[in-house]
Amino acid sequence: MIEGYVPTGIPGVDRVFAEKGIPRGHTVLVSGGPGSGKTTFAIQFLYMGATQHGESGVYVTLDEEPKDIKGNMLKYGWDLQKLEDEKKLMFINVSPVRVAPSETAGLIQIGMKEFRLIKLLEAIRQGVKEVNAKRVIVDPLTIFTLQYPTEVERIYAVRDLMRDLKIMGSTNILISELRGTGMEREHQFEEYLAQGVILLRTFLRGSRLVRVFQVEKMRGLAVDNQPRPYEISTKGIEVYPSSTVYK
Amino acid sequence: MIEGYVPTGIPGVDRVFAEKGIPRGHTVLVSGGPGSGKTTFAIQFLYMGATQHGESGVYVTLDEEPKDIKGNMLKYGWDLQKLEDEKKLMFINVSPVRVAPSETAGLIQIGMKEFRLIKLLEAIRQGVKEVNAKRVIVDPLTIFTLQYPTEVERIYAVRDLMRDLKIMGSTNILISELRGTGMEREHQFEEYLAQGVILLRTFLRGSRLVRVFQVEKMRGLAVDNQPRPYEISTKGIEVYPSSTVYK
Amino acid sequence: MIEGYVPTGIPGVDRVFAEKGIPRGHTVLVSGGPGSGKTTFAIQFLYMGATQHGESGVYVTLDEEPKDIKGNMLKYGWDLQKLEDEKKLMFINVSPVRVAPSETAGLIQIGMKEFRLIKLLEAIRQGVKEVNAKRVIVDPLTIFTLQYPTEVERIYAVRDLMRDLKIMGSTNILISELRGTGMEREHQFEEYLAQGVILLRTFLRGSRLVRVFQVEKMRGLAVDNQPRPYEISTKGIEVYPSSTVYK
Amino acid sequence: MIEGYVPTGIPGVDRVFAEKGIPRGHTVLVSGGPGSGKTTFAIQFLYMGATQHGESGVYVTLDEEPKDIKGNMLKYGWDLQKLEDEKKLMFINVSPVRVAPSETAGLIQIGMKEFRLIKLLEAIRQGVKEVNAKRVIVDPLTIFTLQYPTEVERIYAVRDLMRDLKIMGSTNILISELRGTGMEREHQFEEYLAQGVILLRTFLRGSRLVRVFQVEKMRGLAVDNQPRPYEISTKGIEVYPSSTVYK
Amino acid sequence: MIEGYVPTGIPGVDRVFAEKGIPRGHTVLVSGGPGSGKTTFAIQFLYMGATQHGESGVYVTLDEEPKDIKGNMLKYGWDLQKLEDEKKLMFINVSPVRVAPSETAGLIQIGMKEFRLIKLLEAIRQGVKEVNAKRVIVDPLTIFTLQYPTEVERIYAVRDLMRDLKIMGSTNILISELRGTGMEREHQFEEYLAQGVILLRTFLRGSRLVRVFQVEKMRGLAVDNQPRPYEISTKGIEVYPSSTVYK
Amino acid sequence: MIEGYVPTGIPGVDRVFAEKGIPRGHTVLVSGGPGSGKTTFAIQFLYMGATQHGESGVYVTLDEEPKDIKGNMLKYGWDLQKLEDEKKLMFINVSPVRVAPSETAGLIQIGMKEFRLIKLLEAIRQGVKEVNAKRVIVDPLTIFTLQYPTEVERIYAVRDLMRDLKIMGSTNILISELRGTGMEREHQFEEYLAQGVILLRTFLRGSRLVRVFQVEKMRGLAVDNQPRPYEISTKGIEVYPSSTVYK
Repeated sequence: MIEGYVPTGIPGVDRVFAEKGIPRGHTVLVSGGPGSGKTTFAIQFLYMGATQHGESGVYVTLDEEPKDIKGNMLKYGWDLQKLEDEKKLMFINVSPVRVAPSETAGLIQIGMKEFRLIKLLEAIRQGVKEVNAKRVIVDPLTIFTLQYPTEVERIYAVRDLMRDLKIMGSTNILISELRGTGMEREHQFEEYLAQGVILLRTFLRGSRLVRVFQVEKMRGLAVDNQPRPYEISTKGIEVYPSSTVYK
Repeated sequence: MIEGYVPTGIPGVDRVFAEKGIPRGHTVLVSGGPGSGKTTFAIQFLYMGATQHGESGVYVTLDEEPKDIKGNMLKYGWDLQKLEDEKKLMFINVSPVRVAPSETAGLIQIGMKEFRLIKLLEAIRQGVKEVNAKRVIVDPLTIFTLQYPTEVERIYAVRDLMRDLKIMGSTNILISELRGTGMEREHQFEEYLAQGVILLRTFLRGSRLVRVFQVEKMRGLAVDNQPRPYEISTKGIEVYPSSTVYK
Repeated sequence: MIEGYVPTGIPGVDRVFAEKGIPRGHTVLVSGGPGSGKTTFAIQFLYMGATQHGESGVYVTLDEEPKDIKGNMLKYGWDLQKLEDEKKLMFINVSPVRVAPSETAGLIQIGMKEFRLIKLLEAIRQGVKEVNAKRVIVDPLTIFTLQYPTEVERIYAVRDLMRDLKIMGSTNILISELRGTGMEREHQFEEYLAQGVILLRTFLRGSRLVRVFQVEKMRGLAVDNQPRPYEISTKGIEVYPSSTVYK
Repeated sequence: MIEGYVPTGIPGVDRVFAEKGIPRGHTVLVSGGPGSGKTTFAIQFLYMGATQHGESGVYVTLDEEPKDIKGNMLKYGWDLQKLEDEKKLMFINVSPVRVAPSETAGLIQIGMKEFRLIKLLEAIRQGVKEVNAKRVIVDPLTIFTLQYPTEVERIYAVRDLMRDLKIMGSTNILISELRGTGMEREHQFEEYLAQGVILLRTFLRGSRLVRVFQVEKMRGLAVDNQPRPYEISTKGIEVYPSSTVYK
Repeated sequence: MIEGYVPTGIPGVDRVFAEKGIPRGHTVLVSGGPGSGKTTFAIQFLYMGATQHGESGVYVTLDEEPKDIKGNMLKYGWDLQKLEDEKKLMFINVSPVRVAPSETAGLIQIGMKEFRLIKLLEAIRQGVKEVNAKRVIVDPLTIFTLQYPTEVERIYAVRDLMRDLKIMGSTNILISELRGTGMEREHQFEEYLAQGVILLRTFLRGSRLVRVFQVEKMRGLAVDNQPRPYEISTKGIEVYPSSTVYK
Repeated sequence: MIEGYVPTGIPGVDRVFAEKGIPRGHTVLVSGGPGSGKTTFAIQFLYMGATQHGESGVYVTLDEEPKDIKGNMLKYGWDLQKLEDEKKLMFINVSPVRVAPSETAGLIQIGMKEFRLIKLLEAIRQGVKEVNAKRVIVDPLTIFTLQYPTEVERIYAVRDLMRDLKIMGSTNILISELRGTGMEREHQFEEYLAQGVILLRTFLRGSRLVRVFQVEKMRGLAVDNQPRPYEISTKGIEVYPSSTVYK
């Protein structure tokens, strides 16, 4: 049930969301290519939540280690360690716990099953409880879905993940790695399952690389679906909601 | 057998349908990408039926939970709870009944078979009878077809679903998730099986995202097959039947 | 052996066929997308044969039920029931005879094999004999070929069907569902097996949807292979053999 | 070993072949889409050989029946029956000998193996000997290759066919069905194995369908590789070797 | 943990990297087609490190033999043998140790498993220790990943490789072979796993082949993501950071 | 180890190779479509080597028979028989030795394994020794790689072939059949393994077919990578190194 909205705090984004934000309790898919700023977007959402709106967050990482994310985000002036110390942010490192590959190659297969759905959900539940989190990130969803051999199993796993997140009551961002490129792109099943879909894409226009932000879908809210330019500067991501992408 | 027409009540749509509506008893496929307003279109069809044409409806949901749909539709001012209370609308939640994933992963497979064709048809039959429904929605068809491993089985399952809907005598909308994008698109087998096909698509024209409504097919009625612009505003979907898509 | 020609009676079409018609005994593939008027084309061929050229016909339907086709065709003013009563037209409903799905799901597989080649050919032979048919339609071929798992088996099944039709001496239209779209299209094996191929396609030209009729192939007759516009009005299909498709 | 050249007798074609013709003993692949005139091209090559250059021919058909080919070619004024009676032409019908499908479906599989390589080669050898053929056609190669499940087996089968044809000393045309369309096309392995490759393609240029003849490859002869327009009139195929395809 | 930056020493490249270089400890994927200068780029990075910044390097080659690389690099005036003699550079030849194919074909399969992850990591660790390397190259990654049959296994193997490299503390370049071509390209999973991605691509602009350098991604550093022209001259690679690719 | 350069003797080609030729000991992949002159290019390289630079050659043919190649090359005035008699050229016919297909189909499979890597390498070694060859051609590589079922095995087989050729010390051309067409083309693994890659392609520019020569890659030599027009005349192949491809 929607009860109000969660302001993202990311410059320009809330204006796209009817000056409100993400409907509370929604799970939003943020999909982009390498270097599109997906992780920056998600961290900015948590950081602004914790520092400006009094909402703590949980960051579930399936790929990068927390200490690397903390290091990388310093360039935007975001001190995540401080938030963590203040119990306003919690990193959950569910990247597959693996025996060092130099010991035995046979254990790799076991390591692959260590972070299945149940473990992942338990870890998130615990984390949300501990810091009373209102915002949850899973980064990236792809590592999670890759372990399921068929598309049907993947669809069911993502549905289960989304349902459990819903029961927890948090507002969530799932990060997805865009495989295709350009404006012509196959719709993925995750886009249908999520309540919202945000695309972060890059294009070549003449001799320039242009970054484009677009809300493809947002249930329960009349949003601006037009493609809008965005930039990644030393302050993080900024979307320009009154600009159009091409002249 | 066609006996008259069912006005959709959606602004602009009935004009495309020769000022009449959908031929009574037809099953129409509404196919669109994420965020194209497929669910809005279907709910609007039920809501207008119940409030303006005295026809009650059944909404079979395979994905979103009824209470979320009700919440999301409030932004259009459509009070679905009220219709439900007045027995003018019935939600059937046949989303796969699954044991909580934290109990056992092995049960997922069982859960997947819980909403097979027979169960689904029984649920619809019961619902139609209970509110004397004249309009039925199945949203989305994709979740239903995904459980069949081969295309032949999928074709047969959809045919069986359509035949049973026909026997019930209702006018039906099946919602389909568009996988390709743009005007260049592979025809899907569902398009051949349905009596009507409506496409809801989005395109980039220069710097603007444009929404395009098109009736690809409507057996038994001379419709306007030209692509027409549509919008999603706070009043729901509106099609502009006298406008062309590009200037 | 060709002995004369079979006029289609469809406005504009016979002019494309060198003012003659389809060479007698040929099997012509009519291939089109959803809503392209394939069934209308085939019925018009039978209706004009029965009312204007004294040739009765057989319509083999693998998909829609005869009573629905009769209903749908009334919008063109074609009273197929009357023709049927006068023994000038015979519908053969070889759509897979299936036990109601509510009884047992296991029987679906059996149902799928019920209309294999032999049964289909026996039904056609009987129907042709009963009304002394000179024109035969199979609509759609796709449902028939889908039951064969490999392309080689499909090729052989279609070849066998075409040979038996040839022995019966009728002039035949097999309806095929176009999977690709636009002018760029993979040639299908059925196109090589048939004596004639007619394409019914739709394109977007600027803001308009345009319908294009083209005879890709017609053995034994020097036809006009140029793409020609066609329309579907309340009189059925009309091809404009002196017009070109684009201005 | 090349010993002179075989004039095709097809208007315009020999000029493309350096005013000479096909190098004697070569096997040429003629590849085209449905309705492109592949069979007409091959028959014209045999007919002109028999009537103008005193060279008899063998036509191996894997698809159409000889009496149909004879009927279809009458529109060009070519009396193949007469040539056959004069022992200047021999049809070999190696289309898979199959038990009538109404007897047993199980025999289809057996029928498929009836025309394997050895049988085919024996039939050709016998036919070449009987009419002392200097020109051999196999139409179409596709039916022959389809029976082999892997590409490697197909390559070896076509190589063996080409080697045996070489030993017989005849000049040969293998007809191939073009699957792709347009100028952008995947090269097929047959094109690498044949000594010559001729393409018969159709394109849409503005509102017109244009036919394009092109010699892609011809070992041992400096040919004109440029695309040239061709037409199919009541005299058969004519290539315009001094014209270019587009203005 | 990032502690400063590693200047590449390649003309123009460090300007793209905010006048700094690659964040220390990062693993950067350099992806390009054949002849794009990937190996030249990597060697230049090692050579400049050893001669200008006092950092020794390790070059792991999975394809070319060290003596060939040394020979090829002489055209740029880079004397790698000298660096090797001075213990500033170490080549590790982990190209699959294979029994000569003339002995037994059965051993090939064994040879393929000889350079699995563990062996590779041990060899790198030893090499890094021996010359106290600060820069490591693996060229090419493709040979390494090809031995894993599924994408999931490949992802895990590359992740393990990257983690071990991280523990060693060196700054690393993994060379990747670009399969697609042009600007339209599928994102590969390696691009998501690496901390940085550099693309070396070639395009035809009119009648000229143009080389394009682009930093797709660089975690922890605000880089210039615009495509920039580069050249390969007798001095090695030079990027033009103030030029745009097209006029 | 590179020791000097091998002039090709093909008009225009050595100018592209910095007025030098192919680095001695390199293996160069020559890749082109049907009719692009790949065999002509390779034979011209051998012929010019033998008649102008005193270097004898070995031609390994996996497809055409030596006597046919000799016949085909007479149109350029190249008397290969004479070179063979003078021990300046040696043909090695390793086309799969197969039992005549009329004997038994079962032996085909055996025949396919007759020319595996070891046999091929032994035959080349012997040939190189016998005429003291400095130049070796393998035509085409595709027939060789096709026998390996997986890409990994193919990569390893081609690597082994290249290593053995390297040990022999000859300068080599491997001929590869281009599957894609046009400028947009997938890079093949052979391109990464070879020291040099030359592309022979054909394009339609307006109404003309244009031949384009391009050195994609040449290790150890600063070559001209720009696309250059070439022609096949009665003197063989000529490249125009100062011309650009389009006006």
